[in-house]
Amino acid sequence: MRAATEIMAANWLERIHWGADGLIPVVTQEAGSGRVLTVAWTNREALQLTAATGEAHYWSRSRKKLWRKGEESGHVQKVRTIRLDCDEDVVLFEVEQVGGIACHTGRHSCFFYELHNGSWVEVDPVLKDPKVIYGK
Amino acid sequence: MRAATEIMAANWLERIHWGADGLIPVVTQEAGSGRVLTVAWTNREALQLTAATGEAHYWSRSRKKLWRKGEESGHVQKVRTIRLDCDEDVVLFEVEQVGGIACHTGRHSCFFYELHNGSWVEVDPVLKDPKVIYGK
Repeated sequence: MRAATEIMAANWLERIHWGADGLIPVVTQEAGSGRVLTVAWTNREALQLTAATGEAHYWSRSRKKLWRKGEESGHVQKVRTIRLDCDEDVVLFEVEQVGGIACHTGRHSCFFYELHNGSWVEVDPVLKDPKVIYGK
Repeated sequence: MRAATEIMAANWLERIHWGADGLIPVVTQEAGSGRVLTVAWTNREALQLTAATGEAHYWSRSRKKLWRKGEESGHVQKVRTIRLDCDEDVVLFEVEQVGGIACHTGRHSCFFYELHNGSWVEVDPVLKDPKVIYGK
């Protein structure tokens, strides 16, 4: 049975057009509000783990490691749906964001700069001090 | 005055951490519904044109050219807001999607495959035949 499951998993993962570095972007959107929370990266392992566990996993390009969202902050993302685009090279997670904070700056969403008259303006508040979130 | 405007424009564009190829990803989301419509790419020129005209412009990696969304299909995107993320390397457009079709397949959104029990399933209908849209 194990082998059969692995073959099934491989099929849907192999449908994806992975980049030369084995990665594709992931857009993560909050269920209900529709807010786009983050854009991150995934590889086969991170995506398979996401589907198997129902919790968002990513590949950190800066740290070069697999990363379970919330493993340090507690701000886990419970994945409701996983979608793939027409070109089969970007995925979209719809998630419930535990703690209401997706960004490492302590904000709800990573997209907190908005362009106004030729300047980037911070339009979303810090909900929790990152020093408190990460205990550093 | 023209020079001053150009300097101002350069400032907000230079804040962005452009990739080695001069590009960053753009997530485009529909105002109101919150649906993620597309993920595409932009460069300095496409982003400046988007801000200046209020219509979404992208860089086509496959065609290697600047591209005004809707220039062939008529499915223009009127941009309400432009946001930038915490890492300053992804932008988010909030748009009104003219014609209600963002995908070249004739669907509302490019993210029309959803993962169900280890298979990608088409969950959104084709709203208009691409042959009709593009006249080909």
